[in-house]
Amino acid sequence: MNIEYVKPQDIERRSFEIIAQELGGREIPEEQRPIVMRCIHTSADFDYYENLYFSPDAVKIAHAAIKSGCTFVTDTNMALSGINKAALSRHGCDAVCFMADPEIAETAKRAGTTRASASVDRAAMLGKPVIFACGNAPTALLRLCDHIREGTFRPALVIGVPVGFVNVVQSKVLLIDSGIPCIVARGRKGGSNIAAAICNALLYQMDAL
Amino acid sequence: MNIEYVKPQDIERRSFEIIAQELGGREIPEEQRPIVMRCIHTSADFDYYENLYFSPDAVKIAHAAIKSGCTFVTDTNMALSGINKAALSRHGCDAVCFMADPEIAETAKRAGTTRASASVDRAAMLGKPVIFACGNAPTALLRLCDHIREGTFRPALVIGVPVGFVNVVQSKVLLIDSGIPCIVARGRKGGSNIAAAICNALLYQMDAL
Repeated sequence: MNIEYVKPQDIERRSFEIIAQELGGREIPEEQRPIVMRCIHTSADFDYYENLYFSPDAVKIAHAAIKSGCTFVTDTNMALSGINKAALSRHGCDAVCFMADPEIAETAKRAGTTRASASVDRAAMLGKPVIFACGNAPTALLRLCDHIREGTFRPALVIGVPVGFVNVVQSKVLLIDSGIPCIVARGRKGGSNIAAAICNALLYQMDAL
Repeated sequence: MNIEYVKPQDIERRSFEIIAQELGGREIPEEQRPIVMRCIHTSADFDYYENLYFSPDAVKIAHAAIKSGCTFVTDTNMALSGINKAALSRHGCDAVCFMADPEIAETAKRAGTTRASASVDRAAMLGKPVIFACGNAPTALLRLCDHIREGTFRPALVIGVPVGFVNVVQSKVLLIDSGIPCIVARGRKGGSNIAAAICNALLYQMDAL
């Protein structure tokens, strides 16, 4: 068995070299490239070359939000746990997830909705710039679209990468059509790992600026 | 946009119906089916129908370990955060991840190895039945294979689903060849989400027994 010896600190760099090599000459706009590559890195799934949608100036808008010290709101504790806390802190940002709050469970139960939907209502009350990263629940995206339409909550950017089979594809189309700045994995794919990867890619890009 | 109305508590059931429908008549051994389906559910990636390998009696062995109140050890905090804590507690099991321990970082730095590898050495000292779930670092699997070969640590079951490009494929082949009971996603794919999905599927199966 041919094990390639790579120093621990070089494994990520070597992985990105391999991904770049396999992408070959495929064109990706410069500012989107690290995000596409990090999604492939986290999933070993080259579909993310095809399915990622960026609204106009999405990356620039994300960077401005990070510069303003925004809060990343996730729809799972898994995504929250995947966001690099040192990178957040370098840029004066923080990250929260409301899904495990007992109060959210109570509100959702009373309203006959999901905790993810109730979490969006909670995020709307933060009163500061938000990057909303949805890697799990299309119901969160649908609720976000309600808020955007009614003018009650407008995140600086929405990362719309829920995964699955029930209303996932539709929720992403609605999000794109809402006109909000967004980065979306079209189709069924996505996940908490993809949501965290996109947050981290945006933060690491700022390190390099 | 055609949004399907599904009650929150029915979304998962409906998703599994869709997955079963799309799998059509494809044959999966009965005890492996919920695991394969939960991997597809968490990734929307039907490759997991093709790439999951189960060593002989892997599911039965996992259930026996759970029955004995084993500890799930993960190689990322993301995987740890994805394991259902209520399900763990129903079966008298627990879950840990050593990756963020300052002591592990120190040991790894001294040894010129990865934190994942040092975490395996730490897990070897638990002195109780372990299900080791690796969703990220092939270096953890390689270190596990050393322990298995030398007889210094033998988990009840290894969930070998690291993701990526450097030594990932090789580490999985070595794991399978070691003869340890294992569930493996062959090839490059896997991830913390897949590791957590397999742990949860095994726990939920026990609920249904």
